[in-house]
Amino acid sequence: MGGDAGPGVVIAALGRSVLRHPTAKFILHGDETQLAPLVAKHAKLGPRVAIRHTAEQVRMEDKPSIVLRRGRNTSMWRAIESVKNKEAEVAISAGNTGALMAMSMFQLGVLEGISRPAIAAIWPTKRGQSVVLDVGANVSSDAEQLVDFAVMGEAFARAILGLERPSVGLLNVGSEDVKGHDSVKSAANILRNASLPIEFHGFVEGDDIAEGTVDVVVTDGFTGNIALKTAEGTAKMFVGFLRAALTRSLLGRIGGLLASGALKALRRKFDPRSANGGIFLGLNGIVVKSHGGTDAMGFASALDMAVDMAQSGIIARIVADRAHLGHAVPEAAAS
Amino acid sequence: MGGDAGPGVVIAALGRSVLRHPTAKFILHGDETQLAPLVAKHAKLGPRVAIRHTAEQVRMEDKPSIVLRRGRNTSMWRAIESVKNKEAEVAISAGNTGALMAMSMFQLGVLEGISRPAIAAIWPTKRGQSVVLDVGANVSSDAEQLVDFAVMGEAFARAILGLERPSVGLLNVGSEDVKGHDSVKSAANILRNASLPIEFHGFVEGDDIAEGTVDVVVTDGFTGNIALKTAEGTAKMFVGFLRAALTRSLLGRIGGLLASGALKALRRKFDPRSANGGIFLGLNGIVVKSHGGTDAMGFASALDMAVDMAQSGIIARIVADRAHLGHAVPEAAAS
Repeated sequence: MGGDAGPGVVIAALGRSVLRHPTAKFILHGDETQLAPLVAKHAKLGPRVAIRHTAEQVRMEDKPSIVLRRGRNTSMWRAIESVKNKEAEVAISAGNTGALMAMSMFQLGVLEGISRPAIAAIWPTKRGQSVVLDVGANVSSDAEQLVDFAVMGEAFARAILGLERPSVGLLNVGSEDVKGHDSVKSAANILRNASLPIEFHGFVEGDDIAEGTVDVVVTDGFTGNIALKTAEGTAKMFVGFLRAALTRSLLGRIGGLLASGALKALRRKFDPRSANGGIFLGLNGIVVKSHGGTDAMGFASALDMAVDMAQSGIIARIVADRAHLGHAVPEAAAS
Repeated sequence: MGGDAGPGVVIAALGRSVLRHPTAKFILHGDETQLAPLVAKHAKLGPRVAIRHTAEQVRMEDKPSIVLRRGRNTSMWRAIESVKNKEAEVAISAGNTGALMAMSMFQLGVLEGISRPAIAAIWPTKRGQSVVLDVGANVSSDAEQLVDFAVMGEAFARAILGLERPSVGLLNVGSEDVKGHDSVKSAANILRNASLPIEFHGFVEGDDIAEGTVDVVVTDGFTGNIALKTAEGTAKMFVGFLRAALTRSLLGRIGGLLASGALKALRRKFDPRSANGGIFLGLNGIVVKSHGGTDAMGFASALDMAVDMAQSGIIARIVADRAHLGHAVPEAAAS
């Protein structure tokens, strides 16, 4: 049981989650001497939670390559193992992202036809929500990987966001065909020509993400990670300045009080906790990563996502879509 | 005279600028039949503005390679030419960025020792302002180019932001040394080992930009462009939601009215017009690009930046810093 905040946050989140999902059951991997007293405090948790003891855990600073070899007794390894063994339908962790991805790839394996897994993030937009991927699983991505991300993101948007025909855009520095990396341009060619059940919009730019121009934004993990954190930083700065503006003067304070209901809704929209969790796509099993620094509300949203994912049949969708693309790629790539 | 908004915006901006910069003189390149009546409307402009007639202009959709060959009579070409001929100290345009960069490189040339020019942007942060580069001149950048960007950004921060010893960070997907592209890792090695007068902070992440962790954020033009537009999109969405929150309910409206002074300051902070302009660095002459879709206030900020640049001696600083680095790079790169 990892994460900066420790098991207290996870148990408090479970307290919320058992009410929201009355049929879900939970396996907690971690130090029983810590976990048992915390679980005992919530009367409703007892019958729904099983504790599996292990004293070891992956630390935030551990290198993925090291924990892959020596981390088999960690709570993170065991949580993923319970998905591999079909004991659990989804693993969730607030720990070390690199270690979680490495262990998930090792134990669960990558889906047939998918070259690399990706981490997807749900992004608040003017129109509602979009999904952006990859936000950090890969440092760079070739055209075929970007096409895989499009397939996975589109399946996710249908399964989880409930969209019938999500639109897909490739993140680029301009909407014209002449601009951008070669990998982005070739991926666009493949997506444009393939007879895929994908609504391919073409290129989108950074400001199109918040605009909600498309439902699925595809990019490499370096660019996606930086875009995600840049947006989070901008939103955090904005909330900070807003708070300062509404406390500095007497009129500002009175105005802020009167408008507090409206402003609370605004803060909720931008609260990273409400769309918490990186979703690992492309694995033969479901793994959700919660923000390390989140609180019980944030971890509970990640649990909501995990439950939705488990009920969605998303893995079968990705496999089917990718198999369909199997025929389309060589043709289009050759043209 | 390009830009989506046309010459009316530029002349209105000049009307503000002649008051702010009482010794500055302006040359307007464009269609005299359009420009002369507009200039005539402002009594103060007459003695400070010279019109150079040309009917041709670069359009937003023109390809840089085409206008380089056929665009010698355009207002954009002539504006840069007036810098080349030392008639003007700086060229400013709200037109096609790619064409402006191509023509500037062709006519002014790249500074000795600099491998590629970059476009720098001023970024509002929690602590004040930072400079981020490259935000779009290059699609990808090797380690040496990133080091050049660090030198140019640092010189800009000293000359224009008035910082004595600006700190420099390399944008990456993690602060650990093991993560990120090879180019970013090698650039960090060079900057760390070189005996440069640069305060090198190391890697920064996307959220560090708004946090103001460093004064100069260095990245490739693909990532920088997407980060910049993602932040602009996020800020725009936030302002939109704030406006909606404060108009939806009666209490929200009253609160918004009472707090309007405080909120106006907030909007000003996030107004892209107040830090308008991409600054072309690394050329043997100063060129400033204003946002295409800006208004008179936005174009006037770009003019302010242009005047500051002209008075800063920044080109001499970049040449001196880069020459100093000339000794440092091969040593460090070999280690």
